Amino acid sequence: MQFTAAQISMLINGKLEGDPNIAVTSFGKIEEATAGQLSFLANPKYEEYLYCTKASVIIINESLVLKQAITNTLVRVPDAYSAFATLLSKYQELVTQQLTGIQEPSYIAKTAQIGKDVFIGAFSHIGEHVQIGEQVKIFPGVVLGNNVRIGDNCILHAGVKIYHDCVIADHVVIHAGTVIGSDGFGFAPQPDGSFKKVPQIGNVVIESYVEIGANTTIDRATMGSTIIRKGAKLDNLVQIAHNVEVGCNTVIAAQTGVSGSTKIGKSVMIGGQTGIAGHITIADGSRINGQSGITKTVKEPNRTLTGSPADDFTRSLRAQAHLRNLPDLEKRVKELEKMVEQLLTGRVNAS
Amino acid sequence: MQFTAAQISMLINGKLEGDPNIAVTSFGKIEEATAGQLSFLANPKYEEYLYCTKASVIIINESLVLKQAITNTLVRVPDAYSAFATLLSKYQELVTQQLTGIQEPSYIAKTAQIGKDVFIGAFSHIGEHVQIGEQVKIFPGVVLGNNVRIGDNCILHAGVKIYHDCVIADHVVIHAGTVIGSDGFGFAPQPDGSFKKVPQIGNVVIESYVEIGANTTIDRATMGSTIIRKGAKLDNLVQIAHNVEVGCNTVIAAQTGVSGSTKIGKSVMIGGQTGIAGHITIADGSRINGQSGITKTVKEPNRTLTGSPADDFTRSLRAQAHLRNLPDLEKRVKELEKMVEQLLTGRVNAS
Amino acid sequence: MQFTAAQISMLINGKLEGDPNIAVTSFGKIEEATAGQLSFLANPKYEEYLYCTKASVIIINESLVLKQAITNTLVRVPDAYSAFATLLSKYQELVTQQLTGIQEPSYIAKTAQIGKDVFIGAFSHIGEHVQIGEQVKIFPGVVLGNNVRIGDNCILHAGVKIYHDCVIADHVVIHAGTVIGSDGFGFAPQPDGSFKKVPQIGNVVIESYVEIGANTTIDRATMGSTIIRKGAKLDNLVQIAHNVEVGCNTVIAAQTGVSGSTKIGKSVMIGGQTGIAGHITIADGSRINGQSGITKTVKEPNRTLTGSPADDFTRSLRAQAHLRNLPDLEKRVKELEKMVEQLLTGRVNAS
Repeated sequence: MQFTAAQISMLINGKLEGDPNIAVTSFGKIEEATAGQLSFLANPKYEEYLYCTKASVIIINESLVLKQAITNTLVRVPDAYSAFATLLSKYQELVTQQLTGIQEPSYIAKTAQIGKDVFIGAFSHIGEHVQIGEQVKIFPGVVLGNNVRIGDNCILHAGVKIYHDCVIADHVVIHAGTVIGSDGFGFAPQPDGSFKKVPQIGNVVIESYVEIGANTTIDRATMGSTIIRKGAKLDNLVQIAHNVEVGCNTVIAAQTGVSGSTKIGKSVMIGGQTGIAGHITIADGSRINGQSGITKTVKEPNRTLTGSPADDFTRSLRAQAHLRNLPDLEKRVKELEKMVEQLLTGRVNAS
Repeated sequence: MQFTAAQISMLINGKLEGDPNIAVTSFGKIEEATAGQLSFLANPKYEEYLYCTKASVIIINESLVLKQAITNTLVRVPDAYSAFATLLSKYQELVTQQLTGIQEPSYIAKTAQIGKDVFIGAFSHIGEHVQIGEQVKIFPGVVLGNNVRIGDNCILHAGVKIYHDCVIADHVVIHAGTVIGSDGFGFAPQPDGSFKKVPQIGNVVIESYVEIGANTTIDRATMGSTIIRKGAKLDNLVQIAHNVEVGCNTVIAAQTGVSGSTKIGKSVMIGGQTGIAGHITIADGSRINGQSGITKTVKEPNRTLTGSPADDFTRSLRAQAHLRNLPDLEKRVKELEKMVEQLLTGRVNAS
Repeated sequence: MQFTAAQISMLINGKLEGDPNIAVTSFGKIEEATAGQLSFLANPKYEEYLYCTKASVIIINESLVLKQAITNTLVRVPDAYSAFATLLSKYQELVTQQLTGIQEPSYIAKTAQIGKDVFIGAFSHIGEHVQIGEQVKIFPGVVLGNNVRIGDNCILHAGVKIYHDCVIADHVVIHAGTVIGSDGFGFAPQPDGSFKKVPQIGNVVIESYVEIGANTTIDRATMGSTIIRKGAKLDNLVQIAHNVEVGCNTVIAAQTGVSGSTKIGKSVMIGGQTGIAGHITIADGSRINGQSGITKTVKEPNRTLTGSPADDFTRSLRAQAHLRNLPDLEKRVKELEKMVEQLLTGRVNAS
């Protein structure tokens, strides 16, 4: 890439101070940037770096009053961080859009339908009757089982595996190594102690604007669908069991596991390494701290939960305080015992 | 697929009521099924759906007395759910059996031996001296290292990686992205603070009828074998360290980790996100609740354990109850202190 | 392989007792070894096996005094285990070194630079401008994004995925299925409840002598680098978030997760399934027990931490002891209440 300060300023609707023709070719943190790089200053804590950075162009807040003159070119905007992020997004979109064509060798079943401007990386395997929308980017080594449907503008990173019959909507991003549609963990105990597999004939449905991290696993439903609703974001190494539903705009941090048939509401935020039991419901807007264990339905919306088994956050903090007082409480009881003993034996006269 | 009600009835040894020639082409939940679908009713809770479902054929319990007439075709059996599962299994077996041949491009070493009716998906890599039994289905992108042996009727889903020298018996299913035989985590501390790798020259042995979920990892033994015994079931994202032995028919839920050289008995059930320390033994029939941490050998069989560090389930519940009483206990001690103080100062006359 | 006892003795600088020409072709545990195998005895607990093992050659400690005559050939060294490990390492290096050449089909961009004696397995995808050093072994199905740099003597096992711009130094081993450089989990909340992706334009830098287990995920930095320092060892299914730094010679056991921007010092040892919060610092030499939850910066080096939220190990043990005493404490308070009641009502005369 190569952009001039003037082009950048125009893209983010900024006010330029300095050389409009100076060009940048990459991005850098303000404290590390070199000549030819674009940077930004959003956090006033880092203002000192503004006066020594080598970045050629720096996006800063409109409101910032310079403490000393600088020779770098500035682009002023109402919110430097947001403008920088917008710029990056536009740039990444541009780069991604340019990625098209089918690398060889790849395996594309004759019955598959591929939309326009699609990229398919080498060693990808597109099964029978697969439908792929427009502007989809499939990185190398992706495997799509029979009848998988992918909407428009999706990005499937290297080595993503999607089992047969799963459905992915538009603008979905799935990171490398993630598995969608593996069999749910269902086995019926037999009289001889062995287990008989319960066939898993449902699928996974992922709605639009969902992003899923790397090496995450989402099991297909026993019957029906495991569903990840619009705008939900799942981190790396997350486990979603069969028949789970994850609500709209819910965010799930890394290594969390959700057991079968549980329904998580909208705009829930779940910290990392949390475990959620099966067949329960989590109310909209719940906040669940990391490493929690949720074993019961959460009915009331917008509560904050913590601990394992989880409890209301404030109640849990209070319990912790009581725990810290426990050694002290033991001492007080010992003291009381001594005094009562003395009272009883009359060594202390109770008057 | 297409089956008539008569064929279905015969396959599951049922009693047909209605049109024997009506055909179904797919499965559906009773509350969602459409015309042309097969469904079942096992749970009496859902009986209401029986009277409005559009499913063409429904498998129901022999004992069910209809509350109103219905026009759908019924197949009555002693246990509707079990019959339905059997039917699905038979159907899936049929579909799987039809999958044969070698997709190109794939890489099969000249010294590999492949049994009959094997399917090998594109981009699979079969190393030197690999032996593959009959009716094995290898989905795209599987990598089998040198000298790997796979028995009969196994299914390896997309992107499974099995390192050299590992041995898989018959009727084993391994889901996408799972890694078998990676090096155990063994490093010897050196005087300078660095670590020297301890070579891991053992292998992994997986006995028959084992099923392993997606993105799970099973490390090879330092020497000897890491062993998963007959009929064990492992969920997604499980970690099995070097030299572990998992007993017959033991079931391990998602995201559980078992540390090195631990031996888990038969018919143990382990909840999700449990951690089990190294070099210990878990007795047959143990029940371990989710998110537990097992740090010591469990000698007595059939106990239920919970918590981290884990304790007997009932003892643990009692401890939780005591914890809940703690604020109350503090109040009682405070009250006692006040009264004893009064007794001592004679403000209350002790008679 | 085939080595004579004399060759083995020379390689590990040992003292040979027995037949120098006897040959071994593989390794075996002393209790399981068969004729033609090499074994070792390090742990005196297993000495009994020395007198019945079928191993042709056994490495033993210099100091061991035989309790009975044996016919197997012995190689005596100061430390049998260490000598055996050295021997294995040398052997594995030898085997690995012999692996060279490029298997077809593979995809190597024309702009990629490949060093000498490199092995590239089939179905590997080497992106534009990738640089690969000498003696690197890339197993089948590896995907290297554009501009990735790999140093010398690295081993990338099957199905490793490294995103664009990441940098791997020398002597790094990465196990199967691991993902390096996936996007950090960064989303800015929007007024309508949805989330806007924060572009992740940094990379991952892995320094030399690092080993990383299977199916682990290391996210790229938002800006700058996520860094794994020299000699660090990461186990399977570990999650390293964006902008984390893992110090020199730090060891992280399986299923541990480290949240964004946290800095872990040197020579830290972290047990499995530990969670570490974001934006904190862990001092050098910290010891963190398995399943801990570290929520605050650890300033003092070399402490041992345990629990969730974590506490000093000794304090935590004490708290556990107090917890165990809790039922007893309740009884004592009840007893006190009875006695004080009696004192107050005068049923017991306080003298």
